[in-house]
Amino acid sequence: MEVKNPTVKEILRKYRRIEAISHAENLLYWDMDTYMPKNGAEYRGDALAELDALSQELVLDPGFVNLVRRAEGEDLNDYEKGIVRVLKRDIEYYEKLPPDFLAEMARAATLGFQAWREAKEKADFKIFQPHLERWVEIQRKLAEYLGYEEHPYDALLDRYHEGLRYKNVKDVFSELVPFASKFLRKVLDSGAYVPRHGLEDAEYCREDMESLNRKVLTVFGADWESFRMDVSTHPFTDGVGKGDVRITTWYHGRDFRRSLLATVHEWGHAVYESVMLDEFAYTPLHTGVSFVLHESQSRFWENHIGRSRAFVESFYEEFRRAVPALFNYTPDDVYLYFNLVRPELLRVEADEVTYILHIALRYELEVAMLDGELPVSELPQAWNEKMEDYLGVVPPDDARGVLQDVHWSSHSFGYFPTYALGTVLSAQIRSAMERDLGPLEELVRERSYGPVRKWLAEKVHRFGSTFQPDVIIRRVTGENLSPEHFISYAEERYGKIYGLK
Amino acid sequence: MEVKNPTVKEILRKYRRIEAISHAENLLYWDMDTYMPKNGAEYRGDALAELDALSQELVLDPGFVNLVRRAEGEDLNDYEKGIVRVLKRDIEYYEKLPPDFLAEMARAATLGFQAWREAKEKADFKIFQPHLERWVEIQRKLAEYLGYEEHPYDALLDRYHEGLRYKNVKDVFSELVPFASKFLRKVLDSGAYVPRHGLEDAEYCREDMESLNRKVLTVFGADWESFRMDVSTHPFTDGVGKGDVRITTWYHGRDFRRSLLATVHEWGHAVYESVMLDEFAYTPLHTGVSFVLHESQSRFWENHIGRSRAFVESFYEEFRRAVPALFNYTPDDVYLYFNLVRPELLRVEADEVTYILHIALRYELEVAMLDGELPVSELPQAWNEKMEDYLGVVPPDDARGVLQDVHWSSHSFGYFPTYALGTVLSAQIRSAMERDLGPLEELVRERSYGPVRKWLAEKVHRFGSTFQPDVIIRRVTGENLSPEHFISYAEERYGKIYGLK
Repeated sequence: MEVKNPTVKEILRKYRRIEAISHAENLLYWDMDTYMPKNGAEYRGDALAELDALSQELVLDPGFVNLVRRAEGEDLNDYEKGIVRVLKRDIEYYEKLPPDFLAEMARAATLGFQAWREAKEKADFKIFQPHLERWVEIQRKLAEYLGYEEHPYDALLDRYHEGLRYKNVKDVFSELVPFASKFLRKVLDSGAYVPRHGLEDAEYCREDMESLNRKVLTVFGADWESFRMDVSTHPFTDGVGKGDVRITTWYHGRDFRRSLLATVHEWGHAVYESVMLDEFAYTPLHTGVSFVLHESQSRFWENHIGRSRAFVESFYEEFRRAVPALFNYTPDDVYLYFNLVRPELLRVEADEVTYILHIALRYELEVAMLDGELPVSELPQAWNEKMEDYLGVVPPDDARGVLQDVHWSSHSFGYFPTYALGTVLSAQIRSAMERDLGPLEELVRERSYGPVRKWLAEKVHRFGSTFQPDVIIRRVTGENLSPEHFISYAEERYGKIYGLK
Repeated sequence: MEVKNPTVKEILRKYRRIEAISHAENLLYWDMDTYMPKNGAEYRGDALAELDALSQELVLDPGFVNLVRRAEGEDLNDYEKGIVRVLKRDIEYYEKLPPDFLAEMARAATLGFQAWREAKEKADFKIFQPHLERWVEIQRKLAEYLGYEEHPYDALLDRYHEGLRYKNVKDVFSELVPFASKFLRKVLDSGAYVPRHGLEDAEYCREDMESLNRKVLTVFGADWESFRMDVSTHPFTDGVGKGDVRITTWYHGRDFRRSLLATVHEWGHAVYESVMLDEFAYTPLHTGVSFVLHESQSRFWENHIGRSRAFVESFYEEFRRAVPALFNYTPDDVYLYFNLVRPELLRVEADEVTYILHIALRYELEVAMLDGELPVSELPQAWNEKMEDYLGVVPPDDARGVLQDVHWSSHSFGYFPTYALGTVLSAQIRSAMERDLGPLEELVRERSYGPVRKWLAEKVHRFGSTFQPDVIIRRVTGENLSPEHFISYAEERYGKIYGLK
């Protein structure tokens, strides 16, 4: 990337301070979920609030804002345009939202999170209900402040994927949901349906599992001088800074695919972060990337590589060293175990086909709440009805139902769809990659991950936020976001496994 | 602590932002020495430089400076006075030093550090010499900018212990050096001198040693929900934030007192930080504490507890579980091993008696360079002569001589004396404690560390930087900093060990 325009150069000079705060925040968050002593939480929260406020002041600094506005009118190359576009989005976000409202939202999120946690522990939606009512109001206000053309949901979706609209989401899900429902039905009726797999109970020793995860990432190409893997309650990725990208994973002592596939999933995010930080450190272009694009990367590695037959077969010996019970299972068994299609109560335990239905349910309910069509008091009932309808299972309590996810306590509405859209996009990206590199399974079988990483870096990662995400999607895949590739990939893989074709 | 004055309240409100940056910096430094991937170093350094600059701007913000100046003229309680005093020191530091000079100093420190590291690796002083010459000039300029009444060294010492002057240092060392030299001579001639102890070669397994360290700290009263222990190249303590104080230690696989006593030493710093952060979070009173006072706390735990006969005897069984070879050694043997007096080439390997001589040599040489009496080119020779004179040993090369310490590459002159003065003060504090609590050995033997921590918290820690350090020293000990207690403690302990009385 080369920045030549003097105004943009000056913008980047000032941006270094914002970047430094963001680097510090990245580490403060990482530490909070990995090594921070428990009693450091309150002070940490206060410091993060101060740093947020400071960062916001620097973004809204009149000198800075003027530079960005001025640059907009100048003759810019793609990178420079990208920088100005991303910063303008940040500036407008803060300009549109009154400080009082931002503070109110932060407070509601904190209280909402606490109430949600208690409600979930006690499996009692009533504890959470008033907070969710408040949160729905705040989401409506947020949409009004941010502005939209057709539907308030548009304003919220746009935060996670610039340009994403309610109608796009509806279009995609109107194809996905019937497919997934019908497909699940077929699996259940196939005679090959597996309600529980023996390997789900197979134990492992934490050290061996960690070695396996490290071995897999090393084969994928992890550079351990620029990368770390630690442990946290929920796996996540943190692009802390240039030359410093970190993932976390988890260990439960049994059911080794949970740890392995979480590791592979986060690795997908990490590769993306690494390339962007190498290309765009000290610029806003490595930040604010579409959640859909980011999730497409993690899902690509998790589903198209980690759950593939070639991956299972090529790592089978390593798996056996980590999980003694594998002695009794063939690679075929493991492949099935990695790809069980099954109606689950919990989203985080769902396979990639039924996952679509979990997300559809959530996005439909949040839109209904936003529209005022669904009173929050009726949410648990609506949840359970949709679970019955889509997945044929009904939660025995709200903890395993409507209260299972944290998102409605403190994240904006519009987040959930990005999970499913990322999954869909990962299949489109795979198709595009195979047009250039040939069958992915062959590369995976040969442990030839260099070309895969190189292709992703050149086609996707190296743009960062230079272009709007839909532009990047079209450049990579030659088409708009669309569910066809995902559907044919799923029919092919799971059809074979369950003898549907 | 209660702050009532409205001006000081307003100061503290603004100070929260400075505190948040400092919290972030604490964690960034901790991470740099513990978990940061190697390739993250350059970016980390850039971010820290930006945050330093930002913090400096906030300190020098005219609105903030005016509040501090205004508060000075108001009727304040002790805490409020302390807050204003500490902030005024910070403001004046930045006001006195031109930004260009600060940048020059930072650059010289970075280059000097790199040159020092290379010179040490190659054991070639010539590589470092021009950088040290530059550093001496910078130290002179620094002293001029900061201002002093009698001697430029005063200005530098004052940074590390407010009010400390060259003449105080000279006074103390004029008693310490003859004592330590004479005492070392007596030990060497005693017939009980031990040139090498068998336990120095006794191996341990890292996990067992870590368990021992954790056990000892738990008995000392460590609250692991507010405290961590990790590993780094050199042990250090980082008061990251309220409820979050961290030490690091090291493991060499043999010579277990090195790991144990480093852990105990850092624990002393950590207890101090913990109490201050509990009392003074969000105020400047938990920062900028005298290095002498801080070191007195680490030395108190390391020498007066960790090297005591009662400690060795009361933990002997735990030691044996960590170090198999202890099977062949009695508690008496271990006590001797913890208290070997021996002329060493390296400061960091010195016992507490000869340590005085290592420090004396350094402070005398840095004053001579500052005064221009000693040209840098002649430093290695001067170093070796003083080593011969004070300790009777001469380094075989500069790596183990004049290049052994990092300080002259990037720390201000005036730092070294605080190590010895802290050691001296720890003996005074012990005497004061024993007047209140009775013999320390008895408390240690009973593992009764609660009263020890409570006493230190009430008498020393809970003041933070409220008063000038010498005021705190007088409040605690009833006298000024003075070497008498240290001398009689050393004569007593080592006299017995070596049969000198």
